[in-house]
Amino acid sequence: MRLLPREEKFFSLFLKQVGIISEASKLLLEGVKNGKAQLPAIAKQVIDLEHKGDEVIHEIYTRLNQTFITPLDPEDIHSLSSKLDDVLDGIEDTIHRMVAYRVEVIPQPMVALSEIVCSCSTALHKAFQALEASQPLMEHCIEINRLENEGDRLGRRAVAELFDQEKDPIVLIKLKEIYEFLENTIDSCEDVADVLQNVVVKNS
Amino acid sequence: MRLLPREEKFFSLFLKQVGIISEASKLLLEGVKNGKAQLPAIAKQVIDLEHKGDEVIHEIYTRLNQTFITPLDPEDIHSLSSKLDDVLDGIEDTIHRMVAYRVEVIPQPMVALSEIVCSCSTALHKAFQALEASQPLMEHCIEINRLENEGDRLGRRAVAELFDQEKDPIVLIKLKEIYEFLENTIDSCEDVADVLQNVVVKNS
Amino acid sequence: MRLLPREEKFFSLFLKQVGIISEASKLLLEGVKNGKAQLPAIAKQVIDLEHKGDEVIHEIYTRLNQTFITPLDPEDIHSLSSKLDDVLDGIEDTIHRMVAYRVEVIPQPMVALSEIVCSCSTALHKAFQALEASQPLMEHCIEINRLENEGDRLGRRAVAELFDQEKDPIVLIKLKEIYEFLENTIDSCEDVADVLQNVVVKNS
Repeated sequence: MRLLPREEKFFSLFLKQVGIISEASKLLLEGVKNGKAQLPAIAKQVIDLEHKGDEVIHEIYTRLNQTFITPLDPEDIHSLSSKLDDVLDGIEDTIHRMVAYRVEVIPQPMVALSEIVCSCSTALHKAFQALEASQPLMEHCIEINRLENEGDRLGRRAVAELFDQEKDPIVLIKLKEIYEFLENTIDSCEDVADVLQNVVVKNS
Repeated sequence: MRLLPREEKFFSLFLKQVGIISEASKLLLEGVKNGKAQLPAIAKQVIDLEHKGDEVIHEIYTRLNQTFITPLDPEDIHSLSSKLDDVLDGIEDTIHRMVAYRVEVIPQPMVALSEIVCSCSTALHKAFQALEASQPLMEHCIEINRLENEGDRLGRRAVAELFDQEKDPIVLIKLKEIYEFLENTIDSCEDVADVLQNVVVKNS
Repeated sequence: MRLLPREEKFFSLFLKQVGIISEASKLLLEGVKNGKAQLPAIAKQVIDLEHKGDEVIHEIYTRLNQTFITPLDPEDIHSLSSKLDDVLDGIEDTIHRMVAYRVEVIPQPMVALSEIVCSCSTALHKAFQALEASQPLMEHCIEINRLENEGDRLGRRAVAELFDQEKDPIVLIKLKEIYEFLENTIDSCEDVADVLQNVVVKNS
C-alpha cells in the first residue's frame, strides 16, 4: 500500500468520520447513563454530528470521482465510508427512539449495549489510525468481532428477559426496538471491520 | 455517454419500470384517500403491475447477459433495475398490509407518506427521461433526497404520535408497520437516485 | 467452466456449507414437529452447526485470498458463501427465538414454513452438486423460486390469521417475529439461487 501524498486525504477523511462516530457514541453513553432528562439535548447534538458526517462522506465521494489513483480500491473506499455512515445513522436512530418513545427508565442492558457501541468506536478509531500508518490492524478487527458476539449475547438475553418480565405490550415494543437498534449499530461496526479485514488481505 | 441504437433499449426498459411504479403509486394514493372499501381491488391491480414489472426486469437481465457493449456499466444497469424493483415491491407490500391487517380508518400520515411515494415516482420518471435524453438529471435526484428527508420527518412524527395516542397495542403494531413500509419504499426511491447520481458522476 | 484440480476445493467447500444447512434445517423441522420440549436441545445442536459453518466460510475466504485462478469470479464465490451463511444464521436465529420466547404451542404454519426451509435446502444441495459436476442447475433454482413464492403466500396468510385470531399482543409479537424469521430464511435461499443463476449465465 504505497501512497502518494495527495491521496492520503482519504485516510484523514475516514479518521474524521470515525472521530464523529466516537463523539456520538460517547454522547449516547452519557445519555443512557444520566437518564431521561438529558436525552433530548443529546439527540440534537447527535443530529448535528450526523450533518457533519454527511459533509465528510460527501467530500469522500467527490474526491473519489476526481481522483484517478486511489490508495485503496475505489469500491472499498466507497464501502468503508458508507458503512461508517451506517454506524453514525444507527446511533442517531437509537437516540431518536429513546426520546420519541419517552422511555421513562433506561434499563441496564441499554447501558451495557451503549458501552459496547463505545468500545467498538474506539476499536474502529485504532483500526483506521493503523490503516493510515500502514500498521497491522487485524487485532482491532478481531476485537470488534469479539464485541459484536458479546453484544449479540447481551441483546438476546435482554429481549428474552423483556418477554419474561414486561407485561405492558407497548412498553415491550418500545424497549425491544431500541435494543434491536443498538444491536444493529454494533453489527454495522462489524461490517466496517469485515471490509477492513478484506482490504488488508487484498493489499498484503 | 454515446449510445449505439441497439443499446438504447435499456433506457426504454427503465422507463417502462418507472412507468409501472408511477401507476402503482397512484393506485396506492387513490386507495388511501378513498379508504378501506376500495383497497382490496387496488391490491389486486398492484399485484398485476408487480408481475408486469417482473417481466421487464427479466428482459433487462436477459439483454444484459446478451449485450457486449452496454450504455452504462453492467453492474449499474443491474443495480438500477433491482432497486427500481424494490420500490415496486415496497408499494405492493404496503398495500397488502393495509388490506390484510383490515385497517379500519386510514390515518392522515398514511396519506401524506403515500403522497411522498407518488412525488418520488414522478421525480424518478423525470430523472430516467433525462437519462435517456442525455440531459442533466441531478435536480431530480436532489428533489428525491428532499422528499426522503420530508418522509423521514413525517414518519418519525407519525410513530411518535402513535405511541402517544394509540392505546390498543395490536392496532399500534399494524399502523407502525405500515408507516415503516411506506418509509422503506421512499428509502428505495432514494437508493435509485443515489445510483443515478453515481452513474452521472462516473460518466461525466 | 474448466477447472484445475486444485481449485475444485471451492465446490466441495460450498457442498460442505450446504450439507450443514441441510442438517440444521432438518433439526428445525424435527423441533417444530415434536414441540416445545425438544427445542432447547436442538437449539444447542444448531449453534454447533453454525460454528462449523463459520469454519468453512473462513476456509473459503482464506483460499480465495490465496488462489490466483478461481473457478468462478472471486466476488461470486464470496457472495455465494456469505449468502449461504445467511441461510444458516437465519435457521439459528429462528430456533433461538422459539426457545427464548417460550412458545408454548407451535402453530401449524410454523411447521409448514419449516418444511419449505427444508425443501429449499434440498434444492440448494442439488444445485451445488450440479455446479460441481458442471451439470445444468437451472431447474433447482426455479424450484427454489417456486418454494419462495409458496412461503410468501403461507407467511402472509399466517400473519393475517394471527391478527384475526390472537388477542394477546405479546403472543402476537412473538409468533409474528418467528414467521418473519422463517420467511427471511427462505428469502436467503432465494438469494443464493439468484447468484447461482447469474453465475451460470455469465459462464455459459
